[in-house]
Amino acid sequence: MRNLDEDNITQAVLARHAAMPDERLREIMTSLVQHLHSFAREVKLTEEEWFAGIQFLTETGQICSDKRQEFILLSDTLGLSMLVTALNNRKPQGCTESTVFGPFHVEGSPEYALGDNVAEGVKGEPCFVRGTVRDINGEPVPHASMEVWQADADGFYDVQYEHLEAHQGRGTFRSGPQGEFHFRSVRAEAYPIPYDGTVGRMLKALSRHPWRPAHLHFLIKAEGYETLITHVFRDGDQYLDSDAVFGVRSSLIADWVWHEAGIAPDGSRVDVPFYTLDFDFVLNPVQAGKAA
Amino acid sequence: MRNLDEDNITQAVLARHAAMPDERLREIMTSLVQHLHSFAREVKLTEEEWFAGIQFLTETGQICSDKRQEFILLSDTLGLSMLVTALNNRKPQGCTESTVFGPFHVEGSPEYALGDNVAEGVKGEPCFVRGTVRDINGEPVPHASMEVWQADADGFYDVQYEHLEAHQGRGTFRSGPQGEFHFRSVRAEAYPIPYDGTVGRMLKALSRHPWRPAHLHFLIKAEGYETLITHVFRDGDQYLDSDAVFGVRSSLIADWVWHEAGIAPDGSRVDVPFYTLDFDFVLNPVQAGKAA
Ligand SMILES: [Cu+2]
Ligand SMILES: [Fe+3]
Ligand SMILES: [Fe+3]
Repeated sequence: MRNLDEDNITQAVLARHAAMPDERLREIMTSLVQHLHSFAREVKLTEEEWFAGIQFLTETGQICSDKRQEFILLSDTLGLSMLVTALNNRKPQGCTESTVFGPFHVEGSPEYALGDNVAEGVKGEPCFVRGTVRDINGEPVPHASMEVWQADADGFYDVQYEHLEAHQGRGTFRSGPQGEFHFRSVRAEAYPIPYDGTVGRMLKALSRHPWRPAHLHFLIKAEGYETLITHVFRDGDQYLDSDAVFGVRSSLIADWVWHEAGIAPDGSRVDVPFYTLDFDFVLNPVQAGKAA
Repeated sequence: MRNLDEDNITQAVLARHAAMPDERLREIMTSLVQHLHSFAREVKLTEEEWFAGIQFLTETGQICSDKRQEFILLSDTLGLSMLVTALNNRKPQGCTESTVFGPFHVEGSPEYALGDNVAEGVKGEPCFVRGTVRDINGEPVPHASMEVWQADADGFYDVQYEHLEAHQGRGTFRSGPQGEFHFRSVRAEAYPIPYDGTVGRMLKALSRHPWRPAHLHFLIKAEGYETLITHVFRDGDQYLDSDAVFGVRSSLIADWVWHEAGIAPDGSRVDVPFYTLDFDFVLNPVQAGKAA
């Protein structure tokens, strides 16, 4: 093509990719170029706006480190992460829905036995969590690997404290013979996503707050079932309708029930008021011929 | 919104932006979110592909420095830069067309008088360039500021040589009383865009080469006229149909005419074969009420 203008440039770019041997890559690049160009054409992007975009992306990349992923935050706050999660986790009615993974999961979180306190030393009000893991037919799923992680009463995950040596507020355990589980933790609290970078600036320009409603993360794996990555959200939280990363699903909202100081569900004595949370998970069996 | 899925997530993000006071920003973000989501939906982007994209963008940002702008290269190679150029530089038939700015322009390039050699010490075959600057009505445009810049015979701009102290192969001069200009330089050569970064990796995956056809950059400013950013491309170049950044327009292709050693157009004696290039520019008057 020797005479490129605003009308034929898109076709010229696509034609350049015709020889590409990788079919999936061609499919992705074709769609990407078309939508990117449609965007620029639709808003008649000015040269100044284009350059502001270049600078924004550059700075976003330069904030990233082994402790911080600003492009994931960008994807989260534009709803792209939730969309990709939804596209890749279609499940039959009745299965527990998925939501975004978030940036605070870590590999190798400490192992616990059922009933343990995964939040020893963590600031927050005591909370006793219990439930079952079943499949879509109501069959219990025993020995499922369950990872939980959550923020403390100040809204921070352990990995956000620079000098904390051990993991806190996260743990891995296995469901019991009947798919049952229970553990002790602290009440989940709302927290703002990191907003001192480009994404924070974007949210400000968009008149948006950076808060996520209080939630408890779960990652559940069991042989023969699709891996479930989800949260349980705390009912009544003021940010349930405006989660900064668009992760809320009604079916994932549950009651954190308040109790006066006294005997906890696990039989122990608690000297301060505490909460209980009951939540059951329903896993989707892996379809024949598909990976977990 | 409390029940986000792949169908309603886009509307949920747009609804979040309804309160934004800046109308233009709302227009841009609305379009951006819609096209970004349409892309992910159309290709059913997998979680692995999404993460590969996050990593690509992160690395692209981290390659950027005060000497290198990998996101501009990305925009160039996806045809976005040329599209934005075309959208913002619609001109009446007969005006010289615009093309991409490119990353090798610098502020404060050395000033020359008409007839000077802007490529003293630069490797390449001598080339004598001449032409006129007129407006769409054929009126000469005297004293127009004209910046030229180009690569040397090895395909490098001065700024790509780490230890070069002075500028070479670039200069600013003014057109004469009748809009005429002439200067000496070297013949423009094809060159590859920098391809040792993420964009180079992308081009490789797309089975694309990184070459630009030989060209000479011009930036022309004159009071009362729209600023013209363009190239003149060398006819016969093997990359005219496959410019890595999609900048070619037929009307910008011209002949570099070969001559035996002898008397040059400026009357000087040249001991080696040389080239001449004749090219006239036509500027677009600024519309009443619009900035230059
Ligand atoms: Cu689109
Ligand atoms: Fe979280
Ligand atoms: Fe160039």
